[in-house]
Amino acid sequence: MNRLRLDVAYDGTSFSGWAAQSGRRTVQGVIEAALETVLRLDSVRLTCAGRTDAGVHARGQVCHCDVPGEPDPLWLRRRLVGALPADVRVPTVAAAPEGFDARFSALWRRYSYGICDEPGSMDPLQRHRVLAWRRPLDVAEMNSACRQLLGEHDFAAYCRRRQGASTVRHLRRLSWTRLSDGMLEAQVVADAFCHSMVRALVGAAVAVGEGRLSSVVPLEVLNAGVRDPRITVVAPHGLTLEEVGYPAHD
Amino acid sequence: MNRLRLDVAYDGTSFSGWAAQSGRRTVQGVIEAALETVLRLDSVRLTCAGRTDAGVHARGQVCHCDVPGEPDPLWLRRRLVGALPADVRVPTVAAAPEGFDARFSALWRRYSYGICDEPGSMDPLQRHRVLAWRRPLDVAEMNSACRQLLGEHDFAAYCRRRQGASTVRHLRRLSWTRLSDGMLEAQVVADAFCHSMVRALVGAAVAVGEGRLSSVVPLEVLNAGVRDPRITVVAPHGLTLEEVGYPAHD
Repeated sequence: MNRLRLDVAYDGTSFSGWAAQSGRRTVQGVIEAALETVLRLDSVRLTCAGRTDAGVHARGQVCHCDVPGEPDPLWLRRRLVGALPADVRVPTVAAAPEGFDARFSALWRRYSYGICDEPGSMDPLQRHRVLAWRRPLDVAEMNSACRQLLGEHDFAAYCRRRQGASTVRHLRRLSWTRLSDGMLEAQVVADAFCHSMVRALVGAAVAVGEGRLSSVVPLEVLNAGVRDPRITVVAPHGLTLEEVGYPAHD
Repeated sequence: MNRLRLDVAYDGTSFSGWAAQSGRRTVQGVIEAALETVLRLDSVRLTCAGRTDAGVHARGQVCHCDVPGEPDPLWLRRRLVGALPADVRVPTVAAAPEGFDARFSALWRRYSYGICDEPGSMDPLQRHRVLAWRRPLDVAEMNSACRQLLGEHDFAAYCRRRQGASTVRHLRRLSWTRLSDGMLEAQVVADAFCHSMVRALVGAAVAVGEGRLSSVVPLEVLNAGVRDPRITVVAPHGLTLEEVGYPAHD
């Protein structure tokens, strides 16, 4: 068997997330089916760097699969254009380097989250990937709150807990930029994220940005270590997995 | 009656174009209905700067309407957020300056046209507003052909002719830029455009860009003055009305 690396982009709108689920349209399911058709295999299994939730998009998802033989990556990439629906693309197919694992080799993941805080000005062409927020947001206050969360911490207060799984993560970046009147975007980087973590962090930031919480509260919540009802998990459609980082030799 | 100026953005995907047609969902029809509801009027008629075709988008459409009384523009803008569907926004409402006419005061219109010439790399989040082209395009050749078309000419060869209407236009800009691997964009500016003119000019450019026509042919076709079967009118979904220019005092 030989390992292939696939870089993947998708519009998450019409998918029940990444992970295959029987009877649901998922990104994993759609790409596996396309690979099985093109490679004439009974079964292909993909492993990805970030298992995105329903409605979440990706520009830089990375995954791998093991296949018999040595299919030409350029040929496979070309065949996948026609075999995949228009809401999933595989811009790059390559033979994976020795020992590469899309999930376990990844050093960091970068997500963006887009918000329009002036719903009358939302670009209709971007509405499927930007959250509309009814109140104006103060980016300086949001950045002040978010800076305090950087570093390695137990993010249990910002995670949907799963039995036995660690919630310790290293948050490397969580910064907001106003791109234009009414439009702001977060860049969020960590070694890895637990479930719903980015969307809970964004929920904390907007609560501060609209003045409902003071900028010290998100850190207090982090330190308390339990989920706080004042902090909502924002909608998935503003979230995009932008990039996954690997060691240089990968 | 007082005249209002409305700046409008829309995702053209689910509209049968700008112009009201009975039994069809059109941008004009949807905005007029929202204005009638919010202002409690029997009938509001909009005039726009660029009557976009079915499937064409806009970020900077401008229109005007005449209404009794003096509705507060900020109040009206806010009420329109809820009264309009998510694929149309009215980011600005203002009292129109004396003598303003959205169509006849306009000095120029600027459109963009997006093409992905590497369909495997198409960003799925942009696929509703970017044309997928199967062959790689040479931007330098396209610009060489397009430059020759600048200036005031009879664009009959690039227009769907309408009885009695002039097809003389002043083309101020028609330039292509490669934004990233696989993604290019045209900026097209003229005093005004006749029907399907931008899409026919783009059709000529891609025929040159893929090497099917030499870069002198678009000018020869212009000079011949009749539509040429070698030049196709490209699909509407790559086209966006970006901006309309008015005299400074407007």
